[in-house]
Amino acid sequence: MRFGIIGTGTVGRTLATRLVGLGHEVTLGSRTKDNPSAVSWADQAGPHGHAGTFEEAAAFGEAVVNATAGTVSLQALRQAGAERLAGKVLIDVSNPLVFSATGEVSLAPVNTDSVGEQLQREFPDTRVVKALNTLAAPLMVDPGRVPGEHQVFVAGEDPEAKALVRGVLEQFGWPDAAVIDLGGIDAARGTEMLMPFWLKLMGHFGHTDFNYSIRSAG
Amino acid sequence: MRFGIIGTGTVGRTLATRLVGLGHEVTLGSRTKDNPSAVSWADQAGPHGHAGTFEEAAAFGEAVVNATAGTVSLQALRQAGAERLAGKVLIDVSNPLVFSATGEVSLAPVNTDSVGEQLQREFPDTRVVKALNTLAAPLMVDPGRVPGEHQVFVAGEDPEAKALVRGVLEQFGWPDAAVIDLGGIDAARGTEMLMPFWLKLMGHFGHTDFNYSIRSAG
Repeated sequence: MRFGIIGTGTVGRTLATRLVGLGHEVTLGSRTKDNPSAVSWADQAGPHGHAGTFEEAAAFGEAVVNATAGTVSLQALRQAGAERLAGKVLIDVSNPLVFSATGEVSLAPVNTDSVGEQLQREFPDTRVVKALNTLAAPLMVDPGRVPGEHQVFVAGEDPEAKALVRGVLEQFGWPDAAVIDLGGIDAARGTEMLMPFWLKLMGHFGHTDFNYSIRSAG
Repeated sequence: MRFGIIGTGTVGRTLATRLVGLGHEVTLGSRTKDNPSAVSWADQAGPHGHAGTFEEAAAFGEAVVNATAGTVSLQALRQAGAERLAGKVLIDVSNPLVFSATGEVSLAPVNTDSVGEQLQREFPDTRVVKALNTLAAPLMVDPGRVPGEHQVFVAGEDPEAKALVRGVLEQFGWPDAAVIDLGGIDAARGTEMLMPFWLKLMGHFGHTDFNYSIRSAG
């Protein structure tokens, strides 16, 4: 399958490498054509890895991944172009972290909105699925880094789109039972709002190889 | 030990009943002296359970529990009185849920503040510990309702206060290893912001007998 990845940070490159390793074809898209991080990634990714602009990545992908910082996702995907995203599944893995001058972290949007919802409103012809924004990049593509059962979450309006994302997650190593469907795209609010808690857990453990396991009676 | 519980809702009454069952003495405090829910609770609680005002509950407790709705906690604890809370541990189990006319749930405060922090700022001579706001009332006092290992979280500025709360949690059935210390009271932001996610999980499971287990490598 062909994936367009919007955003060349750690998350974008980690997903791109894993997808290529699984036999998919990937264009890693950046704001400008000559982004060093995208070009050097493509250089070492082999014949199935390409670098391009946001527009080129979106046009290339049968499915598109939003791996930009959540605070600039709307802007980045507008640049990618609604017409290149139309009819496609957009996997939104972003979190809208805002870092203050004093080092404090907050979220924007938050509470009464989320990046997932913003994107779905902006691109009504695209099927947005919020996923994988609740854990660190290495763990997204390799759940075995953390022992035992633990989970990832999907949210979105379109059942077929969520099924496609479940398929990708399964290829990454997440068994179907480890994927909890939280419902519509408004549930993105909940998973994005996990970030302040996640950051405190990172402080507690001193690393990012941890994840949520939801235990339930019956 | 003597506990004053501020707030007579399900959470307050559940904690009050469990504490009395453990041999503690409890005054369940409400805004007005004749609150039917507090009076009827005290009637069936036996000789160690009392009903009173917020002021009486705060004066009575060696430790005080904030079990009011987070949106009105500051107001309730002002009524209880800073002088009656001074020098004491205040266990804040609240979440600041706001229900809109359309049934949408949000939080206030949120993101750049939390109830835990509000209370600690307002009552600097009181040692606030955020705890137990991440799970349903029956589970707070009976972790065995959910099988396997799962966890609760504490946050606060004072190590002795957190140790006292760990002791109470242990009496409720939470082994020390199941209590994760997230650091200072600003971590209350993180645990309060779990609520939108928790509500979606409740929708997914169809009940409230579930809890977080944080899985970590190494």
